[in-house]
This record gives sequence, C-alpha cells and structure tokens, in this order.
Amino acid sequence: MNPAELSPSRARALFRDGLRVPTSGYSPGYAQANLISLPRDLAFDFLLFAQRNPKACPVLDVTEPGEVSASVFDGDLRTDLPAYRVYRDGKLVEERADVTDLWRDDLVSFLIGCSFTFETPLLEAGVPVRHIEAGTNAAMYETDRACRSAGRFSGPLVVSMRPIPAGQVADAVRITSRYPAVHGAPVHVGDPAALGIADLDRPDYGDPVQVREGEVPVFWACGVTPQAAVVASAPEFAIGHAPGHMAITDARDTEYQVP
Amino acid sequence: MNPAELSPSRARALFRDGLRVPTSGYSPGYAQANLISLPRDLAFDFLLFAQRNPKACPVLDVTEPGEVSASVFDGDLRTDLPAYRVYRDGKLVEERADVTDLWRDDLVSFLIGCSFTFETPLLEAGVPVRHIEAGTNAAMYETDRACRSAGRFSGPLVVSMRPIPAGQVADAVRITSRYPAVHGAPVHVGDPAALGIADLDRPDYGDPVQVREGEVPVFWACGVTPQAAVVASAPEFAIGHAPGHMAITDARDTEYQVP
Repeated sequence: MNPAELSPSRARALFRDGLRVPTSGYSPGYAQANLISLPRDLAFDFLLFAQRNPKACPVLDVTEPGEVSASVFDGDLRTDLPAYRVYRDGKLVEERADVTDLWRDDLVSFLIGCSFTFETPLLEAGVPVRHIEAGTNAAMYETDRACRSAGRFSGPLVVSMRPIPAGQVADAVRITSRYPAVHGAPVHVGDPAALGIADLDRPDYGDPVQVREGEVPVFWACGVTPQAAVVASAPEFAIGHAPGHMAITDARDTEYQVP
Repeated sequence: MNPAELSPSRARALFRDGLRVPTSGYSPGYAQANLISLPRDLAFDFLLFAQRNPKACPVLDVTEPGEVSASVFDGDLRTDLPAYRVYRDGKLVEERADVTDLWRDDLVSFLIGCSFTFETPLLEAGVPVRHIEAGTNAAMYETDRACRSAGRFSGPLVVSMRPIPAGQVADAVRITSRYPAVHGAPVHVGDPAALGIADLDRPDYGDPVQVREGEVPVFWACGVTPQAAVVASAPEFAIGHAPGHMAITDARDTEYQVP
C-alpha cells in the first residue's frame, strides 16, 4: 500500500476501516482539508471568524446542519478521517477514530484548506518536505499572534513549519503563494521567537522535524487554528480532525491554484 | 466639486448631506462596496451564500449586530451612502437617502466588493469605462444563471456590463483578474443572450450604456446579487444600497490587488 498511489476514496476507505496515520503524502494531487464541526447556533460566529482570518481559515466547503458529506468530500465525515478530536466546553475530552455515535443533527461542518495540499507542487519543484521524508506528522505550533475575533470565537494563530534550504525559500514562497485557499504564502520566515515559539523541538501538535544546517524554518498558517479557537473560546461542543489526520477531498489541488 | 478629487470621508459627507448620485468615478484609488444589512438570524445563511458565490459576493467586511461603521468604513452606514433600498418580505418597498429611523439593533451589515474599484486601474491602462465617460450609472442585468443556494438564500447572478474595444478585452481581463475581492475577472465576454439577457438597452438596474462598433460587451459578477437573492428569497427585512450608489470605503484599491 503506497500512500502516494491511493485515490481519495480508497484512502478514505482505509481510514474508515481503522488506519490511523497522518495524511501528509496521501493521494497527492488532491486537496486535503481540516475539519471543524460546530452546533448550528455557533456557525455564524465561526464562519465570520474564518472570514476574518482567511490565511488560517480558508473555507473550502460548509455543510448543511447534520450532513456528513460535502460537495468536495464524497465520503462520511464521521468515519473517513483517520482520527478526530472531541471538545466539550473548550476541553479536549477525547481523540478517537470514529465520531458516528457523537454526531448531532445540528452540527455544521466546515472544511478548511490544509497546507498538505501544496506539498505536492513543492516536491515537484524539488523543494524538500521533511516530515514526508521522515514519515512523521508535520510540526505545528501555537503562536503569540491573536486572530481577529468574531462573536464568541477568538484564539491564537497556529502555524505549521517546514525547514527549507535557504536557496529554495524563494521558490517555496512563490509556489505556495499560488494556493491561497490552502493557506498560501508563509506568514513568517526565520526566527521562531518572533512568533512566540520557544522551542521548535516541542511542537504543540504533530511531531518535531529536524532543521538542518543551511535550512530556514518557514511557517505557514495552519487549519488547526479553529481548534485552538475552540479551546480559547469554549463552545459547548465541537469535533475536529486530529491534527495532521486530514479529510482527503475529491478536489484536485489545481482547482485551488491561482495564476 | 470634482468627484475624482474627493477623499472617502469628504464624499461620504456630501452623501450624508443629501447628494444622491451613482458613485462610479468618486474617490478613485479607494475601494467601493455594496451593502446588504440583514437580521442576525439570517446572517449565517447569507454569509454562507456569499462564501458559496465568491465571484458575485466577495466579502470585504461584516459588522457586529447593530453596528453602523466597519473596519474599512469609518462612517455611518445608515446615512453615508447616496441612496438605499429597503425590502420587506422580499419586496422593494422604498428607495431613500437615509435609513437611520429604520435601523435595528439586530442588523448585521455585509460590505461586498464592487467592480467600480477596478475602474481606476482600467482607466489608468487606457481601457475606457463608458458609464464614467457618459456620467451615468453602470448597466446591470439579472442573468439566467442561478447562484449556489445556502439555507434560506437563493437567486440569480447579477452582472455589470462594460463595452470594451475588442483589442483591449485581453487587457481588461488581465487587469480585473488581479482584483478577485471586487469581482475579479469577467464571468462572460460577448453574447448577452448566453446569459439570458434579452436586451442590453434595458438593464435591470442602473442606466443603459452605448456599445459602439468594434466593442464587445464584457460582463462582471455584480454585488447587487445579494439584493436579487433578497427578492428571490423573501427574508422579512433587508436594507441594501441603491444599485450604483455605493459605500465608499477607506481601503485603498491596491489592498485588494493580488500579484
């Protein structure tokens, strides 16, 4: 089973059957998405939060209340991601592989663009992606930058980090800036301290990755930001993907490319 | 009083004092915006409608309920547009210059990008804008294309039309495509019948403009689309701008330019 050769529906079937892995490198060429499912009465505040923080929360799709598939996701949002996180009153109460029995008719699900989507064009341009090489999850960090709040939602910007050889940083910027719907250009290049990140070896989500001599840490806005907002804002209930364990959509990454 | 020399706040003051004119050509260099104000309980459905129809409804700003200014609009949304349209149960009941006495604490106001914004770069590139030359309002048409619906909102795509010399159509496409937040590239070039427009001389909103020999009618998605959705969907109450009589914002048009 080569993750790079799986169609989205085949990958989703494996996850539905229990495979529990980060999805970076899976189904290259297809967009991946962050999930946040919230009760209907919080949906406007969250959609406005996303609209006000478009680099961190680019909205790819929004379901009707209770629906378990989406126009870009021809699967079951309750089972077809490798893992989920469940929040009650802003507390992470559980991580699990299936949320069918927790599902509610009033849940509106938001699919938010994921930077794994632009890793395929990075690799094709010869820009290395360390966590794919290493077979680990991406490294993600909460920053000291506040998102613009909206109604009941506020929280910090979360970023993913990829170490990029100094001579390829410009390529990485140029390539990723063409994909604004999956976070686009980096928000920061270089010093992690300037984002309030104390120690790159201790990510808040995912796995640490090695930054080698001659490489620069490059930070992109991350779709875990909504879950940090859930923790900061304490809505009564929320379901998200487990960081790095994404919804693999049926949309080609090229659909999100701008000229 | 030269409209091209007025700052946004000076233009807004004139409108507040009763000047009732289309705003194309006013305060060049500043973004203009469509207004739609809706009761809070419809706000999610509308924001989702906008998210699903981003070419017609690019959201520049959303207010908190009851607020009368916005981060990009340092004025009073109830008085500082030249004219407003008031809808009850989907019926246009009134057009007037001030909506202060109709304002409600539960109104959420959406500022939607307006194609007047990219007329400055068009003119700078030597592409003519007929309705500015003629001193009239732009020509706007309802099409037979349905927007993607969202909750209680559905309706037809509305477009604005500018006649462009055939040799400059490519320039017009190239220039406007750099402004996706104010409708971006045209949705259609040429035959109006293909959009279900029977007669260019009878626009649904604004004034007709002359299409001269050697010119092609070019159609851009238009921020009157939300008002067509109000008519089609019949929410209990809504306030919009009078078509062509826009909110002049404090945001520079260059803020909405992409590379």
